[in-house]
Amino acid sequence: MSEMNGAESLVRSLLQSGVDTCFTNPGTSEMHFVAALDQVPGLRSILALFEGVATGAADGYYRMARKPAATLLHLGPGLANGISNLHNAKKAGSAVVNIVGQHAASHLELDAPLTADIEGLARPVSHWVETSLSAADVGRDAARAVQAARSAPGQVATLILPSDTAWTPGGQVAPALPVPARAPVEAETLEQAAVALSGPDSLLLLGGEALTEENLERAGRIAAATGCALLSEWANARMERGAGRVPVARVPYPINMALEALSRFRRIVLLGARPPIGFFAYPGKPAVLTHPEAEIIALADWAADLDGALAGLEQAVGGSGTDPVLAPPVAPGSVSGPNTPESVAAVLGQYIPEGAIVLDESVTTGRAFHGATLGAAPHTWINNCGGSIGYSLAAAIGAAFACPDRKVMTLTGDGSAMYMPQALWTMAREALDITVVIWANRSYRILLGELSGVGVMNPGPRALDMLSLERPAIDWVGQAQSLGVPAVRVERAEEFAQALERGFAEAGPNLIEVLL
Amino acid sequence: MSEMNGAESLVRSLLQSGVDTCFTNPGTSEMHFVAALDQVPGLRSILALFEGVATGAADGYYRMARKPAATLLHLGPGLANGISNLHNAKKAGSAVVNIVGQHAASHLELDAPLTADIEGLARPVSHWVETSLSAADVGRDAARAVQAARSAPGQVATLILPSDTAWTPGGQVAPALPVPARAPVEAETLEQAAVALSGPDSLLLLGGEALTEENLERAGRIAAATGCALLSEWANARMERGAGRVPVARVPYPINMALEALSRFRRIVLLGARPPIGFFAYPGKPAVLTHPEAEIIALADWAADLDGALAGLEQAVGGSGTDPVLAPPVAPGSVSGPNTPESVAAVLGQYIPEGAIVLDESVTTGRAFHGATLGAAPHTWINNCGGSIGYSLAAAIGAAFACPDRKVMTLTGDGSAMYMPQALWTMAREALDITVVIWANRSYRILLGELSGVGVMNPGPRALDMLSLERPAIDWVGQAQSLGVPAVRVERAEEFAQALERGFAEAGPNLIEVLL
Repeated sequence: MSEMNGAESLVRSLLQSGVDTCFTNPGTSEMHFVAALDQVPGLRSILALFEGVATGAADGYYRMARKPAATLLHLGPGLANGISNLHNAKKAGSAVVNIVGQHAASHLELDAPLTADIEGLARPVSHWVETSLSAADVGRDAARAVQAARSAPGQVATLILPSDTAWTPGGQVAPALPVPARAPVEAETLEQAAVALSGPDSLLLLGGEALTEENLERAGRIAAATGCALLSEWANARMERGAGRVPVARVPYPINMALEALSRFRRIVLLGARPPIGFFAYPGKPAVLTHPEAEIIALADWAADLDGALAGLEQAVGGSGTDPVLAPPVAPGSVSGPNTPESVAAVLGQYIPEGAIVLDESVTTGRAFHGATLGAAPHTWINNCGGSIGYSLAAAIGAAFACPDRKVMTLTGDGSAMYMPQALWTMAREALDITVVIWANRSYRILLGELSGVGVMNPGPRALDMLSLERPAIDWVGQAQSLGVPAVRVERAEEFAQALERGFAEAGPNLIEVLL
Repeated sequence: MSEMNGAESLVRSLLQSGVDTCFTNPGTSEMHFVAALDQVPGLRSILALFEGVATGAADGYYRMARKPAATLLHLGPGLANGISNLHNAKKAGSAVVNIVGQHAASHLELDAPLTADIEGLARPVSHWVETSLSAADVGRDAARAVQAARSAPGQVATLILPSDTAWTPGGQVAPALPVPARAPVEAETLEQAAVALSGPDSLLLLGGEALTEENLERAGRIAAATGCALLSEWANARMERGAGRVPVARVPYPINMALEALSRFRRIVLLGARPPIGFFAYPGKPAVLTHPEAEIIALADWAADLDGALAGLEQAVGGSGTDPVLAPPVAPGSVSGPNTPESVAAVLGQYIPEGAIVLDESVTTGRAFHGATLGAAPHTWINNCGGSIGYSLAAAIGAAFACPDRKVMTLTGDGSAMYMPQALWTMAREALDITVVIWANRSYRILLGELSGVGVMNPGPRALDMLSLERPAIDWVGQAQSLGVPAVRVERAEEFAQALERGFAEAGPNLIEVLL
C-alpha cells in the first residue's frame, strides 16, 4: 500500500485523466487537496473569490478546450454558490468535474454548522454524483467522474470527498477510463431528412457541435444543394462566425419575432438542436414556436455523432460539389455618434479581433449584433445556454485559460455583470487577456418587455422600481479598478471603438463601461 | 369566484399572515407578483442585485423582527443563488418564506433553458417545500408556508409558484393559520438540571432564545444561586450584550481553545444549545468537545419553551432572590496606535453605540472582541450560524429594515465580504443606517490556522497562494463608492475611532476599510 494520501491520489488521477486545470475557492475540508498541489506538479489551480466564478470558468474552459476542468468547492454552501453556473454548464453540454469537500464521516452525524445534504444539492445540476468512501477509492472515483463528464455531449460530474478520505494514507492512482463513442444517426432518418430539405420552406436547425467551422461548411453546402434555410438555436454553446464562414442566424429571443422567423418552414430537420420553444410561457401564445403543420425530423440530438450526421447528410443531398454562401467581410469604415444598440453593434463589426472569443450575455442590447458582426474578422461566439445571468465574466476566465493566445471579450448587460463582479479580481490576478464590455443601460431592460409579454399592461411605479438600476447608478469604472482591472467609460461610439482598440492592444484585462 | 389573480391573492394572504416585507430579484415568471405590488398596498418590496443578498436579508430581518420576511426568487437558478444564505438561516432557526417562480405547468415538459428541479434544490435548505397547483390554491398555500416558517424555532418554507397560477383569475385570500406552541420542558429533567448545576465545575450552556435580555437575567440569577458557569454556543442567532447585562462568553472557535474552555466542566445543562462539537473534524482531535466524563443534561432544545425553561430552572434553584453578576461599563479612554486585532477591539468597546445591532463575521480578527466589548453600551450581537461566508452584509439589510431606529454595524473579514458585495448597493438604494467595517487582512487568514489544524505542516507556495488575497489588493473604498456607499480607509486605531463616530453620526450607509 502506498503512503500517498487520498488527496494526492485524487490530484494524480485527475492528471492521468487529462484534467490539469482547477478553479477553486477551498476551505478547511479541502486543505489536503490544496497541500497536494505542491506535491504533484502539473495541476494548475486558480483562485476565485466566489464559487460561481469557479463553476462558470469551468464551463467556459470546456467550451474552448473541449476537455473538462475541475472545480474544488467547500462543502454544501460552496457547491450551492456554484449551482447556477453549473445549471448553465449542464444546459450547454459542458463537461465539468466538481470536487466537493465533505466533513469526515464521523463528523457528519454531529450536524456541525456547515453540514448540508451535498448529494441532494448536487443532483439537480449533475448527471453523476458520488461520495468517496475511503482513501483507496478516491483515485478510481476521480477517473469515473472524468469519464462521466466526458460522456457526450459533455456532462456535469460531482465527486464528494470526505476530509478523512483526503488525509488518510492508502491512495491509489487510477488510469483514465474510456469515453463512450457518440451514437451514429440512423440511415433511414438520414434519408428522410435529405428528402425533407428542399426549397426555402425547409430548415436545417443546428445546435451543439454542428456549429464547428467544418460542420458549418458542410451545412452551407447542404443549403446550397437543397435551397433550405439554416438557423441555429437562440443560445449556442459555441459557434464559429465571421467573414469567410457560413453565416447562420439564431432563432430570435422575443417570442413574436421567433414565431415570425419560423412561420414559413414546413419541414424542419434538427441537427444537434432541440425543437424551438419559448424561453418562457406567455399567456395566449404557443409554447412550441414552429408552424403547427411543420414536419419535424429529429435527425441527431446533441449527444449524437454530429460530424458524421453532417457528412452523411451532405452526401445524401449531393452537396459536396456546391459552393456554400459565405459571409462577406464588413465594409471598413468608422462609426460615430451616441452609443445605441445599433452603433455599438457596428463598432463590434469593425473591431472584433481575428481569432477572438466573444462571450455574449447581451439579451436586450445585443439584438442587432448578429447582422453587424457576421462579417467581422473570424471569431468564436459563445452564449449562455441556461439563462441564469452572471455567466459571461466567469466563463471568460475559463476561455482565457483554454486559449491563452486568443483575445477574449465579454459583452454583458450591467444587471448580469453585477451577479458575478468577483470574476474581475481573478482576471487581474491571472493577468488574463480579457476585454469586459458592460452595457450600462441601468435597468433590467429585458423585464420591461417581459412585463407586457406576460400580460401586465400598465405596470405601476412600485413594479417599475423593481426593474431599475438607477438608484444609485453603478460606477463600473470604479468597480473594476477596485478589483485591479483598468477601466474606462464611453458615451459615444467612436470612444467605444478607441477603447476596444486600446484594450486589445494591451496585455491583461480591461473593462469598458458603455453608457446606453 | 373573485377576479383577483393568483399573484394578488398571494400578496394579500402574506399580509394577512403578517408578512409585509419582501426581498427580491424577480424575473419574467415573477412579473405578476411584481405587478400586484401596485394593486395591494402594504407589502414592502426591496430589490437586491443577487439572490444571496435577498435570502441573507430575510435571515437578518427575522433575527430582529421575530417574524418572517418573504423572498421572491426567479426559478431554480434564482433560488440556487440564495441557497447558501438559506443554509445559514436554517442553522440559525430563522423563519423565512421563499416564493420561487416556476414555469407554467405546460411549459415545464418542454425543458426550457431555465427549467430546473426547484423542489430538489429547495429541499436541503427548507423544512417545508410545496408547489401551488392552481390560482385558487395560492392564498391558502401562502398561509401554510408562513405557518410552517413560524413553527419553532423558526423554519425555512419554500412555496413554488408556477407562472400560470400567478396570472390566472380565481385567487382566494387566506387568513393566517395558528402557530404551534413551543413544547414545555419535562419537570423531571428540570429537577435533574437543578441538581446538576452546582459549583464551578457545572455549566449552563445557552443558545437560541435563551439569550434574550430577560432570559440572560434569569441565567445570571441561576449562576449566582448555584455557582455554575455560563457560556453560549460559538455562533448565536442573537444575543443581548453590553454594560449592565449578564455577560456570557462564547465557546471559542479554535479547537484547542474550545477543548480547554470546556475541560473543567463535569455537568453541563443544555438550554437552547446543542452539545458542543468541533466546527470541522481534525485528525487526532475529538469531535465532541466536552470532557469525556461530563454528564450532559439536555434540558431544552432550541425549539422548546426556553422562557419557561429558564423561569422554571430559576425557581428550582432558588435564584429569584439573588443578584446576577452584570458587566461593568468599559473604562472610558482613547485608543491609539496601529490597527491590530486588539486595538480595533478596544475601539469597538468604546464606540459601539447604544442600541446598536452588531453583525459579526470576524472569524480570525474577532477573537479579542468578546472581552473588549462586554462593557460597551448595550447592544445586540448576531453571528453567522451556518458557517457559509458572505452573510453579514446581506443580513444587515434585513436588520436595518426590522429596526429602522437602531444603528446597524457589520464586522466582516475581507474574504467574507467579497462573497456578497452587491449588498452595498441595496444599502445605498434604501439609505439604510449601516456601518460596514471590513477587516482587510488580505487573506483567507482563518485557513492559515486550519492548514496546521488538519495536519498540513509545511504548506508549499502553491497552497499558500490559494489563501492570499494580496494579488491584487482589493480597494474596498473604491468598491463601496462604486456601489453608492461612502467609504474611508484607516490604518490606525484612532482613525478607526473617528471613522466610526462619523459613520454613526451620518444618515445612510458607510464603509470603513480597516487595514490590518
